[in-house]
Amino acid sequence: MGGDDAPRIVVEGAHKARGRYPQARFIIYGDEAEIRPLISRYPGLSDVMDVRHTPDRVTSDDKPSVVLRTGRQSSMRLAIDAVANGEAQAVVSAGNTGALMAMAKFSLKVLPGIRRPAIATFMPTQVPGRGCVMLDLGANVDCEPQILLEFGVLGGVFSREILKVNSPRIALLNIGSEAMKGRETIKDAAELFANAEHLPGEYVGFIEGDNIGRGEVDVVVTDGFTGNVALKAIEGTARLIIRMAKQGFKKSLLLKLGFILCLPGILLAYPALMALKKRLDPRYYNGASLMGLRGLCIKSHGGTDSIGFSNAIGVAADMALIRFNDKVAAELEKLGLGKDAA
Amino acid sequence: MGGDDAPRIVVEGAHKARGRYPQARFIIYGDEAEIRPLISRYPGLSDVMDVRHTPDRVTSDDKPSVVLRTGRQSSMRLAIDAVANGEAQAVVSAGNTGALMAMAKFSLKVLPGIRRPAIATFMPTQVPGRGCVMLDLGANVDCEPQILLEFGVLGGVFSREILKVNSPRIALLNIGSEAMKGRETIKDAAELFANAEHLPGEYVGFIEGDNIGRGEVDVVVTDGFTGNVALKAIEGTARLIIRMAKQGFKKSLLLKLGFILCLPGILLAYPALMALKKRLDPRYYNGASLMGLRGLCIKSHGGTDSIGFSNAIGVAADMALIRFNDKVAAELEKLGLGKDAA
Repeated sequence: MGGDDAPRIVVEGAHKARGRYPQARFIIYGDEAEIRPLISRYPGLSDVMDVRHTPDRVTSDDKPSVVLRTGRQSSMRLAIDAVANGEAQAVVSAGNTGALMAMAKFSLKVLPGIRRPAIATFMPTQVPGRGCVMLDLGANVDCEPQILLEFGVLGGVFSREILKVNSPRIALLNIGSEAMKGRETIKDAAELFANAEHLPGEYVGFIEGDNIGRGEVDVVVTDGFTGNVALKAIEGTARLIIRMAKQGFKKSLLLKLGFILCLPGILLAYPALMALKKRLDPRYYNGASLMGLRGLCIKSHGGTDSIGFSNAIGVAADMALIRFNDKVAAELEKLGLGKDAA
Repeated sequence: MGGDDAPRIVVEGAHKARGRYPQARFIIYGDEAEIRPLISRYPGLSDVMDVRHTPDRVTSDDKPSVVLRTGRQSSMRLAIDAVANGEAQAVVSAGNTGALMAMAKFSLKVLPGIRRPAIATFMPTQVPGRGCVMLDLGANVDCEPQILLEFGVLGGVFSREILKVNSPRIALLNIGSEAMKGRETIKDAAELFANAEHLPGEYVGFIEGDNIGRGEVDVVVTDGFTGNVALKAIEGTARLIIRMAKQGFKKSLLLKLGFILCLPGILLAYPALMALKKRLDPRYYNGASLMGLRGLCIKSHGGTDSIGFSNAIGVAADMALIRFNDKVAAELEKLGLGKDAA
C-alpha cells in the first residue's frame, strides 16, 4: 500500500486502528515475505488480516498514465479492484497520489451526478473540535462552476456525516469577500451555490486564504490548482515555524540553558503540552478522501507514521460505516443531479 | 496615508525610519489638526516632514473604480500624484489596496515593456537572512505567460538589488515539480523562462506551495489569484498556530503553573527568544511593492503598527536609493522588452 515506510507503517497502523474499530477486517497487498513477520508482532492481527502476495508495485516516480496501462497487477491496483468488486469497503494507500487517482477513477468509476472526483482533506481550526474540509486539492486544475457546486455537496456531506457538523457552512475560496472579486468561474459558481435550494449545509459566500483555519466555515470549495497551493502553503508554513524555532534553539546556548531551567515547569504542564501538540499534529488529520467515486478511496500522506496511517484507516472506516456514497447520492438527488447523469 | 490606526502609526513609523534613513524627508497627507500634535512628539521630525492638509480620504470599503473618479483630492491620490510629478520618490500607504493599485496605475502609468503591474512582497525562509520575494499577490487574477515572465524580471531585480541576493533563483508556483504538471499557462510560462537568455537571476523551474519558505528559491512567480491565496494561507497559518497555542495556555491551569516555573529559564533565554520572535514577526516583512509602475508605491499592511510602517518606509527608501525602476528598465532592455513597448 505504498508510502515511504511501507509495509511497516501499514501493518502497525492497522493494529492501532483496531483499538477504535474492533470490527475492522483488512486485506493487505504486497510482499508476503516482508508482511508476515510484521503481522506476527501483533497478537490476533493475523486473524483479521488477509495477505495477498503482490510483487508488483507503483513507485512514487511512476507516471499515472503509464501505471494505468502497465500496473494492472500492482498492489495499488489490486487493492482498488477489491473495492470495485465489493470485496472491500474502502482502500487506503500512502502511495503515489496521481496513480491512485487515475486507477481509482478507472476502476471504481465516477458517481452518477458527479462530473469530476475531487481530493478532499480536513484540517484543524482555532475552534477546538471543529475541523474544516477543503476540496479539491489537486485532482482537477481547472473547474467549471457546476463542478465546484458538486464539490460543495461532497464536502458538505463529509462535514455533516463524518465531522458531525450540524449544518455545515460552505464557502468558496476567493481573493476577497466582496461579490465583485475574483475569477469569473468563481463568481458564476457563487451564483449556483446561492440559488441551490437543497445543499447539505448552508452556502455562506467567499472566504479568503487567511480565514481557512478560523473555524468560521466548515467546507472550503476551490479548484484543484488553488486548493493544492493553499494546502501546501499551510503545511509548509506550519513546518517552517517549527523548523525556525528548532534552529533558534540549536544555535542559542541561552535557549538551551533556559530550557533546562524550564524542565520542572514543562514536566508539570506535560499533559497539557501533549494535548496542544496533538491538536497541531498533522498525523491526526491524515487521510485525504478521493470523493465522487463509486467506492471509497483514502490517500494517506506518504511520509506519515503508523499513527498517521491508522487515522487514515479511521477516515475510511468512518466513511464506510455511515455509507458515505449513499448519503452523497441522496443529496445529489435533492439537487436534481443524481438522476440526470445516471 | 490610511491604515487601521492612522495617522499615529504613520508619524511614529516615519520617526522610527529616520534611525536607518537619517536623510529621509516626508510629505504627509491627511488631517493637519490630527497630525501636527503627533509630529511634535518627536524632536526634529517637523523639520523633515511637510504636512499637506487633506480632509478627503479613501476608506477600506471604497470601490477602486469609484475612488478613481471621485477621489482626486483624497490623501491617497495626492500622495501618489506627488510621486507622479517628481516631488516625492516613493509613496507609502496602509490604505485600501485595490484603490491604491487603481490610482497608482492611473496616475503613475505602467513602465515601458511591462504589460501589467504586480504586487510583490518578501517573507522569511528557514535560511537565516534569506528572504523570498513572491508576486503577483492579487493585482491580476489571470496572467498570460509573457506577464509571468515580466513578473520574474521585477522579482529578480528586487531580490538582487534590495535583498542583496547574488543571482536570484526564480521559480514558477505550480502543483508539482514535474514538467507535465499544472495549468497550460504555467507550462507555457516555463518555456518562456527556460528560453530567456538575460534574466536577472536563474530560472530554476517549478516550486510547490510547501517549499516557498524553504529558502531554495529567491523569487516565486504566480498569477495574482494563486499568489493572494498562497500568501494569505501562509499568514493565516502563522496566526492560527500562535492563537491555538495561546488558547491552550489560557484553558490549562497546568500550563499556567508550568509557565510560572519556567520564568527563570525564560528570563535567561529572553534575548534569544526575542531574536526568534523577531525573525517570525510579520512586521519585519511589511511593505508590499506595487511593481511595474513609473513610480515607487509601497503598500503597508493595514493592521500593522509603527514598527511595521517604518519597515514599509524602509522598503520604499531602499527602492528609491538603488533606483529600482532604472534597474528594471535595464533588465527589460536586455530581454528586448523595454524598447518595443516604449
